[in-house]
Amino acid sequence: VRQRVDRIFAALETEVDAIVLWNASSHLTDSTFKYVSGVTRGGYEGCAAVLRKGLRPTLLVSTLEEESAHTASDSDVVAFQSQPALREILQITLASPRRLGVNADALVLAKANLLRELFDGVELVDVSAAISAARLVKDSDEIERVRHACDITNEVAADIPSMLREGLTEVQLAARIEQAIQSRGGRAAFNTIVCFGKNGSEPHYSPGDVPLRRGDMILVDFGSQWSDYCSDITRMYLFGGASSEQRAMFDVVRQAQASALELMRAGVAGKRVHQRAKEVIDATEFAGRFIHGTGHSIGLDVHDGGGLNDASEIMLAPGMILTVEPGVYVPGAGGVRIEDTVLVTADGPEVLTTVTKDLVEVAV
Amino acid sequence: VRQRVDRIFAALETEVDAIVLWNASSHLTDSTFKYVSGVTRGGYEGCAAVLRKGLRPTLLVSTLEEESAHTASDSDVVAFQSQPALREILQITLASPRRLGVNADALVLAKANLLRELFDGVELVDVSAAISAARLVKDSDEIERVRHACDITNEVAADIPSMLREGLTEVQLAARIEQAIQSRGGRAAFNTIVCFGKNGSEPHYSPGDVPLRRGDMILVDFGSQWSDYCSDITRMYLFGGASSEQRAMFDVVRQAQASALELMRAGVAGKRVHQRAKEVIDATEFAGRFIHGTGHSIGLDVHDGGGLNDASEIMLAPGMILTVEPGVYVPGAGGVRIEDTVLVTADGPEVLTTVTKDLVEVAV
Repeated sequence: VRQRVDRIFAALETEVDAIVLWNASSHLTDSTFKYVSGVTRGGYEGCAAVLRKGLRPTLLVSTLEEESAHTASDSDVVAFQSQPALREILQITLASPRRLGVNADALVLAKANLLRELFDGVELVDVSAAISAARLVKDSDEIERVRHACDITNEVAADIPSMLREGLTEVQLAARIEQAIQSRGGRAAFNTIVCFGKNGSEPHYSPGDVPLRRGDMILVDFGSQWSDYCSDITRMYLFGGASSEQRAMFDVVRQAQASALELMRAGVAGKRVHQRAKEVIDATEFAGRFIHGTGHSIGLDVHDGGGLNDASEIMLAPGMILTVEPGVYVPGAGGVRIEDTVLVTADGPEVLTTVTKDLVEVAV
Repeated sequence: VRQRVDRIFAALETEVDAIVLWNASSHLTDSTFKYVSGVTRGGYEGCAAVLRKGLRPTLLVSTLEEESAHTASDSDVVAFQSQPALREILQITLASPRRLGVNADALVLAKANLLRELFDGVELVDVSAAISAARLVKDSDEIERVRHACDITNEVAADIPSMLREGLTEVQLAARIEQAIQSRGGRAAFNTIVCFGKNGSEPHYSPGDVPLRRGDMILVDFGSQWSDYCSDITRMYLFGGASSEQRAMFDVVRQAQASALELMRAGVAGKRVHQRAKEVIDATEFAGRFIHGTGHSIGLDVHDGGGLNDASEIMLAPGMILTVEPGVYVPGAGGVRIEDTVLVTADGPEVLTTVTKDLVEVAV
């Protein structure tokens, strides 16, 4: 964990006196707080972290989470009773900084304004690119956590065929999947997507009270979070035997995914992986039906910063973990997506979501 | 839903040309996007909403969520393919604004900086106070959703005694509770807190692999989210018969909670409710052991803005929904908290979490 702060400072383009992370309330927290401290429990609403080059992080936590924070063995922990007290502690800790680094991608404007008030004339430097660059390459501890999260999804995905029966609704299947994740010690990393039949044409579809019918193609996109790290997988099932149209759509995506996976090795541009998947699809009858990026970095967040798309500036390197998930969407007919969570290694891609990605036909 | 935008503009102190909500990625989204549109499905990462006085909201959504967004019957929906396209649409929609309202409590700095780039010389006005004021008083649709979320927690809380057996761990009980929420169509609104015995002394404790033992007092703090709205409850159980010390601690909190509840009526200052709970506890052997605020507003977010504490400026009004949750924490010994989700009405408090709040002794 200690090296994580070093990695952030090493990636900085502008020198700063310190970096301040400051969580807002409810869900509006910066997962970088957990990244630099290694804490895996607690929500840390309103808590802050001060990072300085070569030093242990200082965690400023509410007294409500003081005990949880002490699991961060490589950080100094200072507890505060109220937000005014936190502001005083920040002033004492930081003295008179000229330049403070902030993570503009996750710091809310109100906290940025407070920093400007607390430190007269301070310049806030956006260090989100350095944080993103550091977090993009996972260390061994992070890789093990994502691997465990993927193991849970593998087990659950293997169980999905046994959950299917005529009349089961999308909402019910999503609940069954999330229960299966929990019974293995994980949590749903995001709201499980289950699409029956033509509903598969909407990439971010939310499950409804739609019953399963014979002949339905089933798209399931879900992930587990384990010890704060996420996995993400999409698999396709067929309730009955596949029609030739369903099989054709599946085969194109399967081919696009395989072609993209081949490129998941160090030194390849993320943009190139996306282009490859797109080329494969656009050379078929489904040209123009692949309407999103090919993948995203995953870690503490499901969308952990950066991805595989036309705007990507990522150059693949060992330790990166990204999803590879091309798809084809035909409104009124349905859709197919196949998604793996993939670790980039020196030797090429290691697919962490090892469960079969065949179109699983379930006997009705 | 339409009136929600009006309510925000009515609460504004400074006139603005428009208000822009702009979600960041992953979990860093502003629930106000859902508030103004009424959409309950989808994550809306990177999506934006433009609010103008007297007009329907304009939702700028990714093509991935276009179909979901059309459930917002009272909004205009414009779909974008990429973030650069979104920026262009914002420029066309807003023309040359002089003052743009933003929700500084939920807008990340990077998006604020982008707005400044897009609109040369624009003044960003923090309208978070007006948004908070509008959201603090729930309309009938919101109240029904919170009520349903509370009904789920009532049923689950009533089932907890039947889940208890010697050796069950905190983590297992938390998973059972979250599964029970899901099987009723809800989701866990936050990570369920389960504390056995002395672990109850930490208000934001995370459950561990700690087995249940005879004589343990059990603190369970959980909530359901249903149709995006949250409930929050804390109940106490005893695995066996209560000792006189356990009973004494429970009775003090029960008394403090009852006294605070009495004040939950229109026209009472939120601060006063907290002081009442504190006074009751501080008059006992547990003086100084109540170390957090008495409650928080709840709605789309578990911590929905504002609360019952020493810094509170809230004046209670009909339609507000807040938790009332005093507690006592004795490190090394344990803790007691009793929490209800409470609707303020013209006639006084309506406790929505109606399941018994007695100390439930479970025969071993």
